[in-house]
Amino acid sequence: MDLKEYIRDIKDFPKKGIVFKDITPLLADSRAFQYAIDMLCDKYIEDKVDYVLGAEARGFIIASAMAYKLDAGFIPARKPGKLPYATTKEVYELEYGTDALEVHEDAIKKGDKVLVVDDLLATGGTSAAKIALVKKQGGEVVGPAFLIELTFLNGRDKLSGYDVYPLIKY
Amino acid sequence: MDLKEYIRDIKDFPKKGIVFKDITPLLADSRAFQYAIDMLCDKYIEDKVDYVLGAEARGFIIASAMAYKLDAGFIPARKPGKLPYATTKEVYELEYGTDALEVHEDAIKKGDKVLVVDDLLATGGTSAAKIALVKKQGGEVVGPAFLIELTFLNGRDKLSGYDVYPLIKY
Repeated sequence: MDLKEYIRDIKDFPKKGIVFKDITPLLADSRAFQYAIDMLCDKYIEDKVDYVLGAEARGFIIASAMAYKLDAGFIPARKPGKLPYATTKEVYELEYGTDALEVHEDAIKKGDKVLVVDDLLATGGTSAAKIALVKKQGGEVVGPAFLIELTFLNGRDKLSGYDVYPLIKY
Repeated sequence: MDLKEYIRDIKDFPKKGIVFKDITPLLADSRAFQYAIDMLCDKYIEDKVDYVLGAEARGFIIASAMAYKLDAGFIPARKPGKLPYATTKEVYELEYGTDALEVHEDAIKKGDKVLVVDDLLATGGTSAAKIALVKKQGGEVVGPAFLIELTFLNGRDKLSGYDVYPLIKY
């Protein structure tokens, strides 16, 4: 199955000059969605991961179905102020300014195997932040895995030392 | 399995006087998460749903795993401006002011069976908006289903005529 057939180019989104990879046709096609989740999970079946961690909002879609399939728990990484309990926070750089992600401070115990996933590897900032959050809490990072890697943005340079696994490359 | 054991009360979140039902311990427990998704799906196995529709961000977590389990496609409902393609929009009332949800205008074809799900039924505004979006596009509404219903907020009054199905009630 060629998953690229289910990904739609949207010009000038979210701003002029950017071609956005719209994955909603892939998510909407039951066979393509299941195939993508199964293919991503196949790589990690032997790893016996304890948790799959995804960031809001699109990352939740991929991470939740993978957690279900892998018999793992799901951990949400969210923008500051969105999680109700005490959190661990990681600030990361944007093109202009900074942003941050949080996970609950009791989300991960020392030695837990945490598979870090997202829909898209672009500049790598959010994935590096998620990995930092897992390490701060003493977890062992598995992945990171992505539905799509935009190779021309060189995001994997921020993830050196990890086994970056994209299902689809552009 | 008593899923209430995996839900944590957080006082004064997101603002003073509110007791927030934190589902992250349930999501993090692989057995509880799988049990909750399976129990929710059991009710709809015979319905042969085409799509499961969930709203960002927590709704994505429940809807995605259910779509995977039910061999259905996943449709995201998002806040205005977040979806990249042309959308159908539904405005709904808040305590003060209004908010809105959008789905892609080509998400649903006439007669498609769309299971509407969310993590929480509170005042019912977002669920009524999701149902309205499905109907605007000619879809047949299945559900709505919820992980949790806060019965004292009477949200199901906004969903009359539908088979409201919560897995957990408070």
